[in-house]
Amino acid sequence: MTHDQYPPRRRFLKAGVAAGAAMGASAVARPALARTAADPQHAVEPFFGDHQAGIVTPQQAHTYVAVLDLVTGKRDDVIALLREWTDAAARMTRGETAKPLPADDKLSAPDSGDVLGLGAAGLTITFGFGPGLFTRDGHDRYGIADRRPSALVDLPRFNGDQLIAQKAGGDLMIQACANDPQVAFHAARQLARMGYGAAQMRWGQAGFLSGARGETPRNLMGFKDGTNNPPTADAAKMREFVWAAAADAPWMQGGTYTVVRRIRITLEHWDNMERGFQEQVFGREKYSGAPLGKKKEFDPVDLDSLDHDGNPLIPENSHVRLSNQASNKGAQMLRRSYSYNDGTNFYVERWPPWRQETEYDAGLIFIAHQSDPRSAFIPINEKLAKFDLMNQFTTHVGSGIFACPPGARQGSFIGAGLFRT
Amino acid sequence: MTHDQYPPRRRFLKAGVAAGAAMGASAVARPALARTAADPQHAVEPFFGDHQAGIVTPQQAHTYVAVLDLVTGKRDDVIALLREWTDAAARMTRGETAKPLPADDKLSAPDSGDVLGLGAAGLTITFGFGPGLFTRDGHDRYGIADRRPSALVDLPRFNGDQLIAQKAGGDLMIQACANDPQVAFHAARQLARMGYGAAQMRWGQAGFLSGARGETPRNLMGFKDGTNNPPTADAAKMREFVWAAAADAPWMQGGTYTVVRRIRITLEHWDNMERGFQEQVFGREKYSGAPLGKKKEFDPVDLDSLDHDGNPLIPENSHVRLSNQASNKGAQMLRRSYSYNDGTNFYVERWPPWRQETEYDAGLIFIAHQSDPRSAFIPINEKLAKFDLMNQFTTHVGSGIFACPPGARQGSFIGAGLFRT
Repeated sequence: MTHDQYPPRRRFLKAGVAAGAAMGASAVARPALARTAADPQHAVEPFFGDHQAGIVTPQQAHTYVAVLDLVTGKRDDVIALLREWTDAAARMTRGETAKPLPADDKLSAPDSGDVLGLGAAGLTITFGFGPGLFTRDGHDRYGIADRRPSALVDLPRFNGDQLIAQKAGGDLMIQACANDPQVAFHAARQLARMGYGAAQMRWGQAGFLSGARGETPRNLMGFKDGTNNPPTADAAKMREFVWAAAADAPWMQGGTYTVVRRIRITLEHWDNMERGFQEQVFGREKYSGAPLGKKKEFDPVDLDSLDHDGNPLIPENSHVRLSNQASNKGAQMLRRSYSYNDGTNFYVERWPPWRQETEYDAGLIFIAHQSDPRSAFIPINEKLAKFDLMNQFTTHVGSGIFACPPGARQGSFIGAGLFRT
Repeated sequence: MTHDQYPPRRRFLKAGVAAGAAMGASAVARPALARTAADPQHAVEPFFGDHQAGIVTPQQAHTYVAVLDLVTGKRDDVIALLREWTDAAARMTRGETAKPLPADDKLSAPDSGDVLGLGAAGLTITFGFGPGLFTRDGHDRYGIADRRPSALVDLPRFNGDQLIAQKAGGDLMIQACANDPQVAFHAARQLARMGYGAAQMRWGQAGFLSGARGETPRNLMGFKDGTNNPPTADAAKMREFVWAAAADAPWMQGGTYTVVRRIRITLEHWDNMERGFQEQVFGREKYSGAPLGKKKEFDPVDLDSLDHDGNPLIPENSHVRLSNQASNKGAQMLRRSYSYNDGTNFYVERWPPWRQETEYDAGLIFIAHQSDPRSAFIPINEKLAKFDLMNQFTTHVGSGIFACPPGARQGSFIGAGLFRT
C-alpha cells in the first residue's frame, strides 16, 4: 500500500465528524419506532421475549437462511459466539448496525454498511441448533451431549430424496426474515462473519413471499400455500403443535423444532399441465383456493365427499389429503415457507444433438415449526414422499433440522439454558 | 387418468362462475389504475411508447432477466413470437394475466397464476436482440443479417473474465422489472413459456435493489451505486448517451444498447477489509457517498485534488477515477444494476484437511444502457478490467449484449421495424 491509499489519520477524523453527524440522524440511531408501523420498511419486531421471534411472527416478505458448522473444540467459544450473536441480533432488529459504527474509525469495518439508511423492515432473527452441536461423529465436543432433546432426531432418508450433502445439515441455523431482502441478508451475513474462527458457513439460501395484504400468498405453482396452517393467534394450538414439549429437555421450554427443506420445482413441466390436473394434484381449486368440491378457500376440507361415480372428490394421492391432519393422527405443524429463485441450471441432453437444456433453479424453501418432528414432519413427509402426486414436479435437494431454543431475556443470550451449569 | 381426477364439465362451469365473479374484481381485470400510485404494489407503467419501458423508468425493486436462444429456422416463427410477446407484455404490465384466463376452462393453463391478486407492481418488460438473432455461425437464419447494427458488436474478452459460456450470450433478452419479485419472475416465465418450440431458455437471473426513498441505493459492498448516472430527466443527455444513434440501423431509432454482466463479489473477503481501504477502492466515502476529499454524495468528483504529500486524493486505480467520464473521453452510460443473491457455492480446499469451504454466490447484475457500446461500456470496462482495485473482489462470470429496439405502438409489436419488408 502506498501512502496515498491510506490517507493520514487526521483526515479520517475530520471526515468522521461530518459522517457521524449525518449518521446520527439517519443510520446509527435512526428513530425507527417513531415511524408508522404501516410502513413495512420501518416496522420493528421485538427480539427479546419468551419465544424467539420469527416463529409465530406474521410472515415477512423475505428470508435468508444461513447454516454454519462449528469448527472450534472449545465450549467457551460457542458461548461467546452465542452472546455476540444475541447482542448483534437485538441491535439489528432495532434497525441498528450489527456493532456500533464509530465514524472516526477507518481501520475496521464492524458492519458491511449495505443497509445504512434502510429501516429495520420488521427484521426477526431466529437461531437453531442442529444435531452436530451436541455430538459430532459420536464426540461430545462441548459437554452437552446429554442435553440433546430426544425430539431432535436425525431426519431419515425419505423416498425420492436427492439431497446435496454440502447443502444439508449443519450445526447452527440463523433464519433472518424481513420485509426487505437486503435487510434479511445483511443480518445473516454480519452474524456469519462474527463466527470466523469458531463457525463457518455451510450453506445459505434466500427466499421471498409475495402476497396481497390479508390474502394467503401463492407459491410458484400458483396455488395458495398455508391456508390450513394452525392459527398463530390460537395459544392453545400453538402450545399443542408448535412449542416444544420440554419433558426430556427443560432448556427447550418455549422453543420449537424447525425443519427446513429446499424443494426444487420443475416449473417448466408444471406449466405444461392442464389446470384441472394441477387441481387434482393439490386437491384444491387453483383460483379460489377452495378444497375440491367447496366454494371458498377456508371451507373445511371434506375428505369423505364423493363424486357421482362414488370416487373421492379430493383424490387419494392429492397433497391436501395426504398432508391433512385427519390423515395424520391429528398432527399439525406451522408452515412458514418461502419461494426461492436462484436463476437457472443447465445441463446437456444425453442424446444427440446433445443440446444444452436450461431449467429454473426455483422452488420452495419449506420451513415448518413443530413441537415434535417425530409426530409431525417425519410421519407426514414419509407419506408424502411415497404417494404425493406432486412428487413428479418436486425434488428435495436440501434439508436441515434444528432445535430453536426459547427467546432470550435482555442481558442473557440465546441458548443460555442449554449451557447453564 | 381416472374419471374422478377430471370432474365432469358441468361442475367446472358452476365453479367457474363463482371463480370468475371473484376474479373479475381481484385478478383478471382489477382496477389497478384506480389505486394510489403511491402503493408500489399497484403502480402501473405504460408499455407502449416511443421508447421501451424499463430503460429510463425509475428503477423498481426487483428484476428477472431471461435470455433465450432461437431454435427455429423460420422467420415467421420469430415474428409470431414477438407479436405474442408484445400482447402478453402489454397485458401483464396492466396487471392482467399473460393471456385471458377463462374460468370455465380447466383443460389449459394459459398463465401460471402465481400473481393472481397481486397488482401490476410497476412492471416493465424490456426486450433485447442479441447478435445471434442476426447471424448464427455465419448463417443468416431470418434474412436480417444486413440489418445488424454496427454498434451491436460481439463483446471482446476482457482481462480477468471468467465467463461461464452457458450463462452468457443469447439471442433474445427479456428484462422484467417490478416492485415485487414474484411479479417480475412471473412475467419472464410466461414469456419464456410462449417460446416453446421456437426459443428456449439459455439463462435466467433474479436481482433486487434496496434503497430508502429518494436515496441512492447501496450495493452489497455497502457503497452507494449510481450516484454519477446521467439524470434520466435530462432529455439531451439521454439522447447523447442512452438512445441509439440510428445512423446505420434506422430501425433502432429510439432504442438502446444494453450490456448485462453477472459480477460475483467475494463478500467474505471484502468484509475483512478496513473501511479506509474500501474507500480507496471506490474513491468515495462509504457512509456519505461523497467523493474522497468532498463532503456530500453529489459533490463533483475532483480527480485533480491532491493530499499533503502531493498524491491524488482519489487513487489512480480507484473505481470512481477509472470509470469517470473525464477518464473516458466524456463517455457515459446509464447504469441500472441490481444485486443478486443465489445462496452459496461450495468447494473443497485443495490441501489437507480438504475441508469444505462455502462462499456466497452473490454480487451485482450490472446492467448498462448506452447509445453505442463501442464508445461506452467496451473502452470503460477494458480499462477497469486491467486496473480497477476492485477486481480483487469481483469476477465477471456472465455476460450479454443486446440491441433493445424502440417501443411499440399499440397494434404493432416489438421489433416490427427490424422485420419490416
